Amino acid sequence: MKFIRFGDFGSEQPGIQDENGLNLDCSSFGEDWNEHFFANDGLNRLNDWLISQKENLPQVPANARIGSPIARPSKIICIGLNYLKHAQEAGMDVPTIPIVFMKSSSSLSGPFDPILIPKNSKKTDWEVELAVIIGKRAKYVSKADAMDYVLGYAVHNDVSERDFQLNHGGQWVKGKSADSFAPLGPVLVTKDQIPDPHNLRLWLKLNGKILQDSNTSDLIFDIPTIIEHLSQYMTLLPGDIISTGTPSGVGMGLNPPTYLEKGDVIELGIEGLGKARQIAMEDPEA
Amino acid sequence: MKFIRFGDFGSEQPGIQDENGLNLDCSSFGEDWNEHFFANDGLNRLNDWLISQKENLPQVPANARIGSPIARPSKIICIGLNYLKHAQEAGMDVPTIPIVFMKSSSSLSGPFDPILIPKNSKKTDWEVELAVIIGKRAKYVSKADAMDYVLGYAVHNDVSERDFQLNHGGQWVKGKSADSFAPLGPVLVTKDQIPDPHNLRLWLKLNGKILQDSNTSDLIFDIPTIIEHLSQYMTLLPGDIISTGTPSGVGMGLNPPTYLEKGDVIELGIEGLGKARQIAMEDPEA
Repeated sequence: MKFIRFGDFGSEQPGIQDENGLNLDCSSFGEDWNEHFFANDGLNRLNDWLISQKENLPQVPANARIGSPIARPSKIICIGLNYLKHAQEAGMDVPTIPIVFMKSSSSLSGPFDPILIPKNSKKTDWEVELAVIIGKRAKYVSKADAMDYVLGYAVHNDVSERDFQLNHGGQWVKGKSADSFAPLGPVLVTKDQIPDPHNLRLWLKLNGKILQDSNTSDLIFDIPTIIEHLSQYMTLLPGDIISTGTPSGVGMGLNPPTYLEKGDVIELGIEGLGKARQIAMEDPEA
Repeated sequence: MKFIRFGDFGSEQPGIQDENGLNLDCSSFGEDWNEHFFANDGLNRLNDWLISQKENLPQVPANARIGSPIARPSKIICIGLNYLKHAQEAGMDVPTIPIVFMKSSSSLSGPFDPILIPKNSKKTDWEVELAVIIGKRAKYVSKADAMDYVLGYAVHNDVSERDFQLNHGGQWVKGKSADSFAPLGPVLVTKDQIPDPHNLRLWLKLNGKILQDSNTSDLIFDIPTIIEHLSQYMTLLPGDIISTGTPSGVGMGLNPPTYLEKGDVIELGIEGLGKARQIAMEDPEA
């Protein structure tokens, strides 16, 4: 299954992307793709419903905005410095234990929405990441069982303000949480369609020039390790997003360091999970 | 208004506490005390409804569990080291800018629920704090306007696992996010009933012995400063919880350091906001 959501920010409608790449409107299913849906066997119920209904689903209008493929979750958890070369470019020690930080869930946005450069920002940066979406409540899970708790995967840009993150008081959350700082999608692909999530090319371009180009095989901590680790500290809920870290090639690692300016175009993608595209602009509320 | 919620964890019903301290069942109002309620003028609508309905409201059964007075919010944000003596007992520098970290929203619990000592925890600690609850969307708010965005206040125990927080990989969220680590309440008191939130005694007892006893007048960063600061970095949503920091007297500051053990009784309270009581127990899922 490939989940999508479409429509205005905050009032998105649910849909799916079919095997031909067509976006189909599932609003008649009557549920959003959210914690309640996933916690109540939503995937199986939707599959059953589609047997009789799929032929009748309207296409999503071509000009519709595409939103995050899941509704705002209880939490967005990120793993820091989880690719060797990125830890080096950031000037940080290579972690021996997963570095965990949160993004505000209010930063979630659509894959083609603009990236809003926050007020007083001079260092808004990009980070292509494989996001793992949790399918069922996970607490004290072992590595061996961890993949049972995965619903699927999506492309995530862990947009980061480096000055806010590193120089404004110690905890990274300040630089990770502005509106539009978590574009997710275009699709959420269920795990049955991704035979090996640890062998996916992921890449990011700035204004057409490729800056990040790596593979999830380079993750320092793999997905089962991350889920085991996180679930010792907090309970993961259905729909929760875990962003697994970014490879090298972010703006702060370039020489000279380079950050987003109004009009810059970011394109990013992961093998099997589609492509996203975001244009940087000043936050109109700033 | 004093909001309460009652009933089983995860299926709480809404209520209010009247001027005589009676808990009244408002489930017939048909809404939970959540982001949607607060964002849609819920307080005024409830006040109007109570004019005709208050006399008919059933009392909450005396043996009902009291839950968090608000439903799970989009985020729980905490301010670290916001009382001078606590920064000193923690062996940390006194901050010149607010220290901000997140607690997982899944840690939210009721004011009389047990504190579940997590698996592998040896340093589960307490922190009485004044929690501020946001009433309307706040972004780039100035200090002068900040109080307009406050809905009210509640007692919060920012339960913290010190080893997880400080020695497991850099970011504090790991030690702040276990289930039951955010008991809130017993009530959420709207700001009209608290003339000066910067002059409230707050205290905490362990097994009857008073260990924290201070006043919100000692906050390093006051509430308007905190809201101005946070809203530059992330958008605060209705129902969001901001925990303003704890005074000295936490377990890691005692000589010798002292942490929660099975059967320990924590009582805590804030002037005008009521008293909470929690008993420590091992997490039955551990």
